[in-house]
Amino acid sequence: MTIMKIASFAAGQWVAPGPNARPIHSAISGAQIAEAGGAALDMQAMLEFGRNVGGPNLRKMGFHDRAKMLKALAMHLGKRKQELYDLSFDTGATQSDHMIDIDGGIGTVFVFASKGRREMPDGDIYIDGDIEQLSRNGTFLGMHIATPLQGVAVHINAFNFPVWGMLEKLAPTLLAGVPAIVKPATASCYVTEACVRIMLESGILPEGALQLISGGTGDLLDRLGAQDVVSFTGSAQTASMLRSNPNILKNSVRFVAEQDSLNASILGPDVEPGSSEFDLFIKEIHREMITKAGQKCTAIRRIIAPETHVQNVIEALSARLEKTVIGDPRAEDVRMGALVSAGQKQDVLEKAALIGTESALVYGDPDDSSFTGEVDAGAFLKPMLFHCQSPDSATVVHSTEAFGPVSTIMGYRDIPHAIELANKGEGSLVASVITASGDVAREMALGAGAFHGRLYFNNATSMKESTGHGSPLPHMVHGGPGRAGGGEEMGGVRGVLHYMQRTAIQGSPDILTAIGNRWVPGSTEIEGPSHPFTRKFGELSIGETLHTKPREVTLEDIEQFAHFTGDTFYAHMDSDAAKRNPFFPDRVAHGYLLLSFAAGLFVEPNEGPVLANTGLDNLRFMKPVEAGDSMKVRLTVKAKTRRTDEYGEVRWHVTLTNQNDELVAEYELLTMNAY
Amino acid sequence: MTIMKIASFAAGQWVAPGPNARPIHSAISGAQIAEAGGAALDMQAMLEFGRNVGGPNLRKMGFHDRAKMLKALAMHLGKRKQELYDLSFDTGATQSDHMIDIDGGIGTVFVFASKGRREMPDGDIYIDGDIEQLSRNGTFLGMHIATPLQGVAVHINAFNFPVWGMLEKLAPTLLAGVPAIVKPATASCYVTEACVRIMLESGILPEGALQLISGGTGDLLDRLGAQDVVSFTGSAQTASMLRSNPNILKNSVRFVAEQDSLNASILGPDVEPGSSEFDLFIKEIHREMITKAGQKCTAIRRIIAPETHVQNVIEALSARLEKTVIGDPRAEDVRMGALVSAGQKQDVLEKAALIGTESALVYGDPDDSSFTGEVDAGAFLKPMLFHCQSPDSATVVHSTEAFGPVSTIMGYRDIPHAIELANKGEGSLVASVITASGDVAREMALGAGAFHGRLYFNNATSMKESTGHGSPLPHMVHGGPGRAGGGEEMGGVRGVLHYMQRTAIQGSPDILTAIGNRWVPGSTEIEGPSHPFTRKFGELSIGETLHTKPREVTLEDIEQFAHFTGDTFYAHMDSDAAKRNPFFPDRVAHGYLLLSFAAGLFVEPNEGPVLANTGLDNLRFMKPVEAGDSMKVRLTVKAKTRRTDEYGEVRWHVTLTNQNDELVAEYELLTMNAY
Repeated sequence: MTIMKIASFAAGQWVAPGPNARPIHSAISGAQIAEAGGAALDMQAMLEFGRNVGGPNLRKMGFHDRAKMLKALAMHLGKRKQELYDLSFDTGATQSDHMIDIDGGIGTVFVFASKGRREMPDGDIYIDGDIEQLSRNGTFLGMHIATPLQGVAVHINAFNFPVWGMLEKLAPTLLAGVPAIVKPATASCYVTEACVRIMLESGILPEGALQLISGGTGDLLDRLGAQDVVSFTGSAQTASMLRSNPNILKNSVRFVAEQDSLNASILGPDVEPGSSEFDLFIKEIHREMITKAGQKCTAIRRIIAPETHVQNVIEALSARLEKTVIGDPRAEDVRMGALVSAGQKQDVLEKAALIGTESALVYGDPDDSSFTGEVDAGAFLKPMLFHCQSPDSATVVHSTEAFGPVSTIMGYRDIPHAIELANKGEGSLVASVITASGDVAREMALGAGAFHGRLYFNNATSMKESTGHGSPLPHMVHGGPGRAGGGEEMGGVRGVLHYMQRTAIQGSPDILTAIGNRWVPGSTEIEGPSHPFTRKFGELSIGETLHTKPREVTLEDIEQFAHFTGDTFYAHMDSDAAKRNPFFPDRVAHGYLLLSFAAGLFVEPNEGPVLANTGLDNLRFMKPVEAGDSMKVRLTVKAKTRRTDEYGEVRWHVTLTNQNDELVAEYELLTMNAY
Repeated sequence: MTIMKIASFAAGQWVAPGPNARPIHSAISGAQIAEAGGAALDMQAMLEFGRNVGGPNLRKMGFHDRAKMLKALAMHLGKRKQELYDLSFDTGATQSDHMIDIDGGIGTVFVFASKGRREMPDGDIYIDGDIEQLSRNGTFLGMHIATPLQGVAVHINAFNFPVWGMLEKLAPTLLAGVPAIVKPATASCYVTEACVRIMLESGILPEGALQLISGGTGDLLDRLGAQDVVSFTGSAQTASMLRSNPNILKNSVRFVAEQDSLNASILGPDVEPGSSEFDLFIKEIHREMITKAGQKCTAIRRIIAPETHVQNVIEALSARLEKTVIGDPRAEDVRMGALVSAGQKQDVLEKAALIGTESALVYGDPDDSSFTGEVDAGAFLKPMLFHCQSPDSATVVHSTEAFGPVSTIMGYRDIPHAIELANKGEGSLVASVITASGDVAREMALGAGAFHGRLYFNNATSMKESTGHGSPLPHMVHGGPGRAGGGEEMGGVRGVLHYMQRTAIQGSPDILTAIGNRWVPGSTEIEGPSHPFTRKFGELSIGETLHTKPREVTLEDIEQFAHFTGDTFYAHMDSDAAKRNPFFPDRVAHGYLLLSFAAGLFVEPNEGPVLANTGLDNLRFMKPVEAGDSMKVRLTVKAKTRRTDEYGEVRWHVTLTNQNDELVAEYELLTMNAY
C-alpha cells in the first residue's frame, strides 16, 4: 500500500510534506497509511495571501452572493462524498459516523447558505437591531452595523470530525466574507485534505479564500493581528497554551475556543422505569457512548439519575451496550468502530483509570479485546460505565474527560441537587434533560442555563423528530462557558457575526440610509417619474416616495365597515363606552379600516410589476381617528431584496397621518415585484 | 483640612483604609485631600457575598423589577448630585466635565431602566431571536435564551470618570441580575466612594448587589471562576497583564477590556474651509482636546484632513485653543481644568515628547504655566497640537496615546488614504467623519468599520442635535477591536447580555413555551372558561385559545371591499390579469379583507377589559383566498407584559386557515388589556 503524502495549500500552491513528516496510522490495522507535515511553510505569505487576495475577493461579493457560493459548494461536495467515506474508515469511523461527519458537514453548509439568503441582507453591510433615537427632532440617529473583518480566520480543528469540524467553521467564515486558513489535527488530516482538494478544484471559491496547513502552524499565531480570528477546537490544555500567546493577548486577537466538557444527561424526576421516556434516556446515552467510539466533544460523560433509578439505568444501559457489535467499521453489522489511534486509546485508558479511583466500574472491561474483524493491531476499546457513589465530594468525574466510550452514572436527590451536580462540570457544551414536565424544564433552565451552552430537552412528544443530545446544529449556538472554552460557534447569523466587527454608527438619517442601503425615516424622499407600482424592481430607488391625496373617514364609513366585517367592537360603535376607555375620545375608526383605506389610496390598480402584497411588519397605531378626521398616506421604498430569478421583495415604509399631519399609524409593507 | 478616609464596602461592611493607605492629592492645589487602600480585605468573602447573597437577591427579581430599581436609583442620585459636583472639582474637572461624568452617569442609568422596560421581557428569561424549525412536523424546535451569570462582575475602572465609569458598567450588570464589585482608580476614588455611599444608603439595592474596593484588588482575580466577569477600563499595559492571569485563562473568565485608542477625526473631502461643516470639525476637535483636559478614552488623538486643508485646520484650531481659559475649574470662566495628578501630567509630557520625535509642535508650549487662579502646585497643562508630515511612515502617532490635551494633525490624499491612516491605529473606540456626502460615509463605513467600535458622522443637518465625537451613549456599543481592547460595553440590551449566558434550548413546543413563558406555535392550546376578550389581563393564561366559526368569502365581498376601500388592484378585480400573475389562480380576496373579517370573527363587541388594538407584527400571507373559500381564525395568548398600573399588553398569535385547514395568513396582534 502506498503511503499518502498529505499536502498543504499555501499562498495558492500545493506543498508536499517535508523530510520530517509525521507518519499517520490506520485506526483499524495500525499500519502507516499517510504522512503529513515537515514542510517549511511561509506563514507570513499565507497570511498575506488571505488578507490581500482572499479577503478583497470575498468582500467584492455581498451576503447573498456568498450564500449562493456556499450552496454550490455544498452541492458539489454532496456529489463527491463517497470518496470521503472511503478514506474515513481508516480513522476508525463507521458509516453512521460518516453520516454525522461528512453528510452533517455538507448539511451545515446548506443551512448557512439558506440562512444567508433568508436572514442577511442582499448587500454588503449587515444591520444589527433597530434605529436608535438619539435626538428629539430626529436629525441625529444611531444604528449598529457589522462588516467583515479584514484579516484571516485561523481554524484549528480536532481529529474527531475531519469534515464537519472544518465545514462548521468555514461556512460562517466565508458567509461573513473572511478567508480561512484551516489546520486539521494530524491524525485524520488526510480526510480534511481530500475535502479541501474537492472544494478548491471545483473553482467555486475565489482565490485566497481557503488555505490548508497539514502539519504544524509554526509561528503563525505570533503573526496575527486584531483583524484576524482564531477558532480552536481541542483540549483545554492546548487552548490555554495558545490563548496565552503574548501576541494574541497584546493585539486582542479574537480567540474562540471549544474545548473540554463534562456533558451531563439528566433523567427527570417525573420519568419512571419502563416508560417510553426512560427508554429514550437509555437510547440517547447509548448512542453518545458508541458514536465515533465516544470521541465527541458533546458526548455524555455524566449520567445524572434519581437515586432510586440508578440501578435501573445501569441495568438497561449495560444490556444495550452488551448487544453492541464493535470492530472493523467497514463491516455492516458493526455499530462502533475504533478510537483514532493507539495513542488516543492509551489516553482514554489512563483517564478511565483516574475516574476509577473514585467511581466503580459497573460495565466493561478494558482488557476485553474480542472485536469483530481482523483488527488486533487497531485502536479498539470496549465501552466502560462507571458508577460514582459520592458525586458531591467527587472531583475527577466532574473535571476529567476520558475522550472515548466512557461515561459515569451518579444519583441525585431532588432537582436542585441535579442542577448542582450538572453545574459541577464548571461549564459544558450541552446538558440534556429527559422530562415531560414544563415545570421541570423551566427550573432546569433557570438553574443550569448559565453553566451550559445548550440545554437539550426530550420526551415522548419530541423523540421521533429530535436530533440527538450530541448533535450541534448549524441553527443553534455550539460552545459553552468555563471549562468548555467560553466560545460560541454557529447559531445561524450569530456564528457569522463572530467573523465580523460590530460598529455603532451615528449620523443624520440620510447618512444612515446611505450606509445601510435601507431607508431611515427622516431621510430625503425621492420623487419618482411615475407611480412606484408601475415601475419594475430594478427601477425603484431606495427612498422613492408616494404621497397620496387625503380621504375623509365618516361615521358612515365606520358603520359600514363594522357591519360588513362583523367587527362591532364597542370602541367603534358605542360613544359612551368609547369615552370611558382610557385611549379614545369617542367612537373611533377600526385600525383595519385605516389599513384598508390606506391601500385604497396608494395602490395603482392596473396590471403591472407589483405581483402581490406578501406581508406587513411592525404596525403601530399611534393616534385614534374619529369620524370627520381625514387620513393620507406616505409610501416609501425602504429596502429591496432579490428573491428569485423573476422577482424580488420590496419593503415599503408607510405612515398614515391625519388632517393635522399627526402620525396615526406606521408600518412596513412587503410586496413582490417583477424585475 | 481633614484628610478623607476612603473606605471599601466589603461583604456588607464599610472597611476603613489600613496603615499602608496611599495618599490622594488635589489636582488643583497638589495638597493631600484623602487616603485609600491598605486595608486587609477578604476577597473570598466579598466574592461569596456577591455570589451567595447578591446574585440570588437580584435573580429573585425579573428584568422589569430590576429596571424599576435602576430608575429609582437614578432619581435618587439625581437629587444628591451636588455633593458629587462639590467633591469632583479636586479631580481637576470643570462643571461641564461634571455634567458628562455625573449627569451623564445618571442619564445612563435612566436609559438602561427604560430599555429594560421596553426591550426586555416582563420576566426572568430573555429570549434571543426567533424559534428555529428543527423538524419537519414541528415537534422538536430550537430557541436561544439568556440567563444571568451566577457569579460576580468585577468592574475595574479608570480615573477619568469616577461616576459615569462606574454607572455605565453597573446599570447593565444589575439589569442582567448580576452583583458587582467596583474597583475605581485610586486618583479619583473619593468621588466614586461618595456615589456608592449614596446608592447603598438609599436602600434601593438588595443586599450583596454592590460592593466597593477602594485600594488594591489583592488576589481577587486569582479567585474568579467561569461565572464571573471582569470589565476593565484602563491602559493596554494593565489590561494585558490582567488578562494573562493564569486563573482567568484557565477558567475562560470573560474579560471585557476598553483600553488605549488612537481615535481619529476625518475631515471629509467634500468639506471646504469656511463652510459650516469646517467650523463643526474645528469645534468637535477643540471640545475633545479640552474636555476633562483631554483625559478621555474617546478623545481625538489624530486629526486627518485633506492635505490641502491641513494648514487651515491648524490655524483655525490654534485660534480657538488660544481663546480657551485654563485653570482652577471652580472659576466660572474656566473652560479646561487640570490633569488628575502630577504623575499623570508627567506621563503626558513624556508621551508628547515621544510624539515630538516624528511630528512638529505647531501649537502649545509644555513650559507655559500661565493659568487662571492660585494653581501653581496643580497638575495643569496647556493643550498641544502636533503636525505629522509623514503619516505613512510614522509609527508613534498611530500607537502612542498621550492621555491629555494632545492631538496630532496629518494630511491625506484621497478617501482610501484617509481610511488607511485611520486604520493604522490598529483598532480604536471611535472615528469621526465630518461629511455631507452619503457616498463618502458609505465608503468610510466599508473601509474603516472593521477597525472601529463606533463611527460618528456629522454635518450641517445633524450638528445641532449631535451628541459629540467623544460621548459614548448607553444606546450604542462602546469599545473597539485590537488596541482598544476588543471589548464592548453598553449598546442597550447588547451590554446587558455581556453579563448573561446565552444558551441554546431544544425541545418540544410545550417545553419551549414553559421555559420562555411565551407561547410557541405547536404547543398545547388552553380552552378558557369564556371568550378571552371578556377576561382581565391577570385572568388570561399563556396558551389560552379561541377558535372561531368559519365565514365564507364571496365574490360580492371582494367587490364590495374593493369599491368601499378604493383598493381595486388587478389581482382582486380582473380574472385574466390575476391568472397571469405567478402567485394567484384567479381573482383573490384582499389581504386586508381577510384581516378585517378575522377581527369580525374573533372580537367580542361588548365593553370589557380589552381596551384597544395597538398594533400587529409579522403578518405573512401564505395562501390566496378565492371567492367561495371560507376562513376561520385561531387566536392564542402568546405573551403578556405589564405596562402601567392599570393595563398591560397582550400579544396574541393568530392564524387564519381555509376550509381545508391550510394556513392562509399568520400574525401577532397586540392589545392593551385592563388588569
